[in-house]
Amino acid sequence: MSLADLEKSLPPGRLILDPDVIAKYLHDEAEWAPFERPLAVLRPRTAEEVQIAVRWCIDTGTAVVARGAGTGLSGGANALRDCMVIVLDGMTTIREIDPLERLAVVEPGVVNDDLRRACEELGLWYPPDPASSPWSTIGGNVATNAGGVCCLKYGVTRDYVLGVQVVTGTGDLVRLGRRTAKGVAGYDLAGLMVGSEGTLGIITEVTVRLRPSRLPERTVAGYFDSIVTAGRAVEAVAASGITPSALELVDKQCLLAVDAWKNMGLSVDADVLLLGRVDTPGAIGDDEAHRLQRVFEEAGANWAVHSTDQTEADALFAARRLAYPAMERLGPVLTEDICVPIRAVPQMLARIERIAAHRETTIANIAHAGDGNLHPLLIAPHDDNAARARAQAAFTDIIDAALELGGTVTGEHGVGLLKMDGLAKELDPAVLDMHYSVKRALDPHNILNPGKVVPAR
Amino acid sequence: MSLADLEKSLPPGRLILDPDVIAKYLHDEAEWAPFERPLAVLRPRTAEEVQIAVRWCIDTGTAVVARGAGTGLSGGANALRDCMVIVLDGMTTIREIDPLERLAVVEPGVVNDDLRRACEELGLWYPPDPASSPWSTIGGNVATNAGGVCCLKYGVTRDYVLGVQVVTGTGDLVRLGRRTAKGVAGYDLAGLMVGSEGTLGIITEVTVRLRPSRLPERTVAGYFDSIVTAGRAVEAVAASGITPSALELVDKQCLLAVDAWKNMGLSVDADVLLLGRVDTPGAIGDDEAHRLQRVFEEAGANWAVHSTDQTEADALFAARRLAYPAMERLGPVLTEDICVPIRAVPQMLARIERIAAHRETTIANIAHAGDGNLHPLLIAPHDDNAARARAQAAFTDIIDAALELGGTVTGEHGVGLLKMDGLAKELDPAVLDMHYSVKRALDPHNILNPGKVVPAR
Repeated sequence: MSLADLEKSLPPGRLILDPDVIAKYLHDEAEWAPFERPLAVLRPRTAEEVQIAVRWCIDTGTAVVARGAGTGLSGGANALRDCMVIVLDGMTTIREIDPLERLAVVEPGVVNDDLRRACEELGLWYPPDPASSPWSTIGGNVATNAGGVCCLKYGVTRDYVLGVQVVTGTGDLVRLGRRTAKGVAGYDLAGLMVGSEGTLGIITEVTVRLRPSRLPERTVAGYFDSIVTAGRAVEAVAASGITPSALELVDKQCLLAVDAWKNMGLSVDADVLLLGRVDTPGAIGDDEAHRLQRVFEEAGANWAVHSTDQTEADALFAARRLAYPAMERLGPVLTEDICVPIRAVPQMLARIERIAAHRETTIANIAHAGDGNLHPLLIAPHDDNAARARAQAAFTDIIDAALELGGTVTGEHGVGLLKMDGLAKELDPAVLDMHYSVKRALDPHNILNPGKVVPAR
Repeated sequence: MSLADLEKSLPPGRLILDPDVIAKYLHDEAEWAPFERPLAVLRPRTAEEVQIAVRWCIDTGTAVVARGAGTGLSGGANALRDCMVIVLDGMTTIREIDPLERLAVVEPGVVNDDLRRACEELGLWYPPDPASSPWSTIGGNVATNAGGVCCLKYGVTRDYVLGVQVVTGTGDLVRLGRRTAKGVAGYDLAGLMVGSEGTLGIITEVTVRLRPSRLPERTVAGYFDSIVTAGRAVEAVAASGITPSALELVDKQCLLAVDAWKNMGLSVDADVLLLGRVDTPGAIGDDEAHRLQRVFEEAGANWAVHSTDQTEADALFAARRLAYPAMERLGPVLTEDICVPIRAVPQMLARIERIAAHRETTIANIAHAGDGNLHPLLIAPHDDNAARARAQAAFTDIIDAALELGGTVTGEHGVGLLKMDGLAKELDPAVLDMHYSVKRALDPHNILNPGKVVPAR
């Protein structure tokens, strides 16, 4: 079957062959991950259209790369040579929000914030809140098992996925998982799809679990004069037994970048900012917020404040959210995504400082610090090959340090292309073998995002 | 390699060939599930001993059935003809409880309540609380993805498993998952092991996530004169937006059985008892408990009481926990384990009543009602073949009704042997194919609990 045959079997306009339009779908936001020219781009409106395309790809031996908004940071959505890129951002229907069963059924192209807003109107909450939530899609969030600020207390995307509809590697359109609160009927194949980055199936619908609207949060900000001291405060929070609803870190370089963009005046007061939130209701929550402030102080904060001003508190968190795009404005940013045990956070932050010095690379830091999930941001201009080589070496050093400290090479961004070497270092060869076996079992024609996540043997 | 060779490669006493001892390990607590005579029983003390045995089984084509305390209710641990039963109840070391990282590392034979007690001493909480918690092991809980009373608010075993060590179908000893709060390095193979009932690997160690000690709970009891009215109250609780920390149902037959055993005097007041708990702290929680009581009353409770007496509240929950063993004292109990949408709970309970009448079978009911997870208990004496045939027909009717109402054939007990027909009804043939593919991929010699969970083709 030729591409023209495929085009005829789909509604008009779905298959895109215009090179200028195709050029929009070449890669995600991962710096330095390679990408190639696809054969065509499909923008489907239904699961059946995805199925038609996947079957065509099986028949013709064409690789399939699925993507949503393309906000990924590991190259998972980068186009492969002569592949079919399936862009799911046109499937944006929220099919159902059911307050009684506390679930929502959505098409994969629904933007995270759009789902959250729709839930909120019904007194419900979809917690996963990656920094990309204004743009990234639920399908992409599921494919990468996206995290965010809420994870510390409320878990990651996987914790909210009840079921998925997928087009499989054999071209079947199936539903995995369930709509009930509990269920153990067979293997957890829905869970297996979560975080598999398009290598085991193309997600065409997602059923997510919801919570009741969240309770008001109190914000506690701590200003520290070194990143390692801030790291010790993170460890001290964990030791205190408090479970904050957020515990984020933003360093001076990020604060300066935000100020340069939005003129918020944040960088005046702090070298490193720790932002904690507490949503435990009532007096117990008030007490926890005060304890959190004391923990910051006792761990060496120059200044810690329990914010009673919601506008001010929101501004601090807005700065956290803007940190990454603010840094990107200043030049290409290679984003790390390691996750280490909480006890290792101070050490890991110290190691990052030493690596930056040793590799003569500018490294800024934002972090979901309470999870031990650090995002060192490596900065190197496009036109400076030596600087890029040093940054690449620093990237590898950081991965090695994280593994040495008992951590993982990716906390929430996924393996994609950037972390394949890291994955091979992290996993036992026998565990890698299990990955190959599962991949072969569910994608026997090896057409689903081949060569990503699991390193070629 | 002969069995004698295997015996020599293991420490003395590990391999059991004495038929009288072997007889203790023939089956779990599932009524009516078939079992056969094993070749031998292994009671290992280390993961390496499990590995030696599994490798021997691969070499000799011997099936492996893993089990913990044998409290399963689906026949998943039932011996197969000439198999090797690996009993993990001798591996009872709690290796580590880490309050800062909020995790524990345990051997698979650790009894659920023992882990919970050890955690409690450190101000921590391991939530999954199947009714079998005084006897069942963490390994078994993980293999079946056990639920319990806490699930409604705090989730099931899967939600607490960070990592597992397993002996694989290829005889490798590997660690899957992680110790960090987050991580997306590769496929969720640890999650895939959870609930796979010994068909994809033998669990030799488990790393679980912990929570801080739970907050005090308020208990609200509602007495209803029909099970369908109680079911409507369950639906009304969900509609109210309250998230109870427990919402359990016990019917008159169970209350009578508990009274006959423990003389608690519970059956005097109620035909059907709904037991709710609320652990939201402070005034908000007090308000929720009062609202819960009002919801019970408005839904038609004869009497609803917000218990302030902890002893009385504990007694009510003890009755819930004793209901199953109390019924068992009266004769063989075939336990159902369907889970339906909350909205379908009243209908499902009505269907169970009709099925009991139609099939002339005594069916008592306990339920994790707030999850829609119902446990109709089918009673039929061993020596009455006609009654057993009717009960078997009722069992199938209940499964069919649950599927018709959008439910699943097993909420928390697993597929084992009893729900294999149900699984084949529930899953799409293409999804069953995915199960076969995954099973073949990870158990290429087909030695891990073969013929269980996934129906033979």
